[in-house]
Amino acid sequence: MDPVVSWEHLSAVELTVLDRLFWSESMSRGELASLADFSRSKANTAVASLIERGLLEERGAQPSSGGRRPGTLCLSNAVGVLVGVDIGATSVDVALLAPDMTVLAHHAEAADVRNGPTQLLSRVRKVISELLALNQMDNDQVLAIGVGVPGPVAFDSGLLDHPPLMPGWERFSIRDCLGEDYSAPVFVDNDVNLMALGALWHLRRRLQNFLVVKIGTGIGCGIVCHGAVYRGNNGSAGDVGHICVDLGGPRCHCGNVGCVEAMAAGPAIARMADEAAHQGESALLSEMLATKGELTPYDVGAASSAGDAAANAIIKRAGNHIGQMLAAVVNFYNPSHVFIGGGIAATGPLFLASIRQSVYHRSLALSTRHLEIQYVPNAQKAGIIGAGVLGVQEILSRAGTR
Amino acid sequence: MDPVVSWEHLSAVELTVLDRLFWSESMSRGELASLADFSRSKANTAVASLIERGLLEERGAQPSSGGRRPGTLCLSNAVGVLVGVDIGATSVDVALLAPDMTVLAHHAEAADVRNGPTQLLSRVRKVISELLALNQMDNDQVLAIGVGVPGPVAFDSGLLDHPPLMPGWERFSIRDCLGEDYSAPVFVDNDVNLMALGALWHLRRRLQNFLVVKIGTGIGCGIVCHGAVYRGNNGSAGDVGHICVDLGGPRCHCGNVGCVEAMAAGPAIARMADEAAHQGESALLSEMLATKGELTPYDVGAASSAGDAAANAIIKRAGNHIGQMLAAVVNFYNPSHVFIGGGIAATGPLFLASIRQSVYHRSLALSTRHLEIQYVPNAQKAGIIGAGVLGVQEILSRAGTR
Repeated sequence: MDPVVSWEHLSAVELTVLDRLFWSESMSRGELASLADFSRSKANTAVASLIERGLLEERGAQPSSGGRRPGTLCLSNAVGVLVGVDIGATSVDVALLAPDMTVLAHHAEAADVRNGPTQLLSRVRKVISELLALNQMDNDQVLAIGVGVPGPVAFDSGLLDHPPLMPGWERFSIRDCLGEDYSAPVFVDNDVNLMALGALWHLRRRLQNFLVVKIGTGIGCGIVCHGAVYRGNNGSAGDVGHICVDLGGPRCHCGNVGCVEAMAAGPAIARMADEAAHQGESALLSEMLATKGELTPYDVGAASSAGDAAANAIIKRAGNHIGQMLAAVVNFYNPSHVFIGGGIAATGPLFLASIRQSVYHRSLALSTRHLEIQYVPNAQKAGIIGAGVLGVQEILSRAGTR
Repeated sequence: MDPVVSWEHLSAVELTVLDRLFWSESMSRGELASLADFSRSKANTAVASLIERGLLEERGAQPSSGGRRPGTLCLSNAVGVLVGVDIGATSVDVALLAPDMTVLAHHAEAADVRNGPTQLLSRVRKVISELLALNQMDNDQVLAIGVGVPGPVAFDSGLLDHPPLMPGWERFSIRDCLGEDYSAPVFVDNDVNLMALGALWHLRRRLQNFLVVKIGTGIGCGIVCHGAVYRGNNGSAGDVGHICVDLGGPRCHCGNVGCVEAMAAGPAIARMADEAAHQGESALLSEMLATKGELTPYDVGAASSAGDAAANAIIKRAGNHIGQMLAAVVNFYNPSHVFIGGGIAATGPLFLASIRQSVYHRSLALSTRHLEIQYVPNAQKAGIIGAGVLGVQEILSRAGTR
């Protein structure tokens, strides 16, 4: 019979052990004791108690030439499953994750966040329920639900706060809505914060100070400071889409002029492509427009890959604007890495190259001497893994303050 | 006889007690136990041991109507004195501080950092020695020396890293130079980081996420994140002076165009005043120039206070440029407060008003809804107190890892 899993009355040492193991690649009892601030005997006592409670398990213990090879410790699958939901402006991802962040099931579909919460979340509830059924799991095996949304979130309440891309979601409680089906707690955060958390977990906190920039319908930034996600005074940190890059630029929906989002995010790239097609600057884009009726940033990427000069110019222009915004941010923040993600990042290597060129040109040498600008590691899964990490992290933090 | 002060072999609980007391306004034994993560008896044992070692003392215990009033605990004066040195581009401050950050002695004088380290530091060594003598203290009573410099510092080595305002200081070891006179450790940091640390201590960490912007010969920013100073990946975080605010602006000494420092720091304000005087835009500035031979930002402040329209326009222009840079930084960082300090902040209330107006105009409503823009609290002493705080903080942190 499985042991009864219980999160009640965990000691500070036990919580620290769970946290260290969750964030480590793989760890034996000996490594655990040497890493943590307590003795080997304390670590062993805590590990024994956690195995007894069904929270930990030891895997891969096997004989070797030098005697018994130490097994590695990890959170037990018996503790349940994490649900990760990543709501984008035009898509939604739902996944089930084991406590070691293995993706057990993953479903993605197109969705328009502007249709409001009722429609989208009823679909999300249905998908979660189906994924659980497919994996033969009950609702009470859900440990926590993490949800990412493309807008600013007041993290404590989980409520959206004036989300420009999400009319109708203002003050709507995603937490209450998803909580109707599950006794598990629901945590809501900005999507790029979750992408940053997913990247931080993927890197096992080996990097402590970095940025994740997501470029899609909007432009947002996740900030990792001293090894933790930084959300700012009221949850709007990383709202870089409305940093001005051209005092003479177009008016943005926020009311100001020259915001980088209005000049370099998905809709701006599509608009520039439309103009190029209409003005006869690119036979290829004109042909695509005639065939499809409208142009997307992905069409621009395809045209660029095919060597179209106008498409290349559009991508360079967008990349340069983003690089100019990042130059300011890099001077201020001096991160070790800037990771680029989101749908538009997939436009092609020219986009990343243009961003890099612009940052290195505009930032101080000192800020960029060791700076690396790369794609988000494990980009396809970073958002949903971040949602799972948020769930585990918040459960441990709550267990500690009970 | 005084007890023998010893920092050796402090336990984790004792170090936590010292840290909590150093950062608190005033605290009794009971308050200490309720704040820290350990029992009252553990706290009492640690306090007794620390008093015995001469590191702590209890002050102000006195009878009251309800029996003995609990005394407050604080670091003992017997542990020694902190030396704070705040090197600016055009001035140097030296102070002696008690372990509770009371300023025991303070000397300030004009100095030109461009003359290089040898001349300036030999003067600093002389002043420290004189202040100690005046206060009847020996060299071995110096606990730590904290030094602030107007340039980027690699914090671990204490070496300046390509400081634009400090030619000749590159890779010069301030630590070794001041260490010749004292066995105490020397810690070097960027001046605005120390100002931020001084403000953080003054506020007793009640604010966790804020910025301190110092406007003088250059423009720099200290970043407080999650209650600690954030220095970035290689010590250049907060280097906001070279954020571009006008793509058509003048060329900066860094090689780029339109840097906020080139358009709004002290030298830019003086240059604008000079132009206004020469072009006959202000009778008052022309008269000042004729009398003094050159104009300083303080002359512009004085002319502005006297109602001079050209001086007002110069201050507004500089304030607007700084506000524009801060709008980008505030969108990114979402701080609760931006504190403005440095010599130029003293130019007058119009300067602060112009900065505020520009930030509120250009930042997202969400980032500025709760944002406060004020002068640095305890501005005159924030730098040297920050230097003292750095000393105590680093000594405690070293004692913890011994």
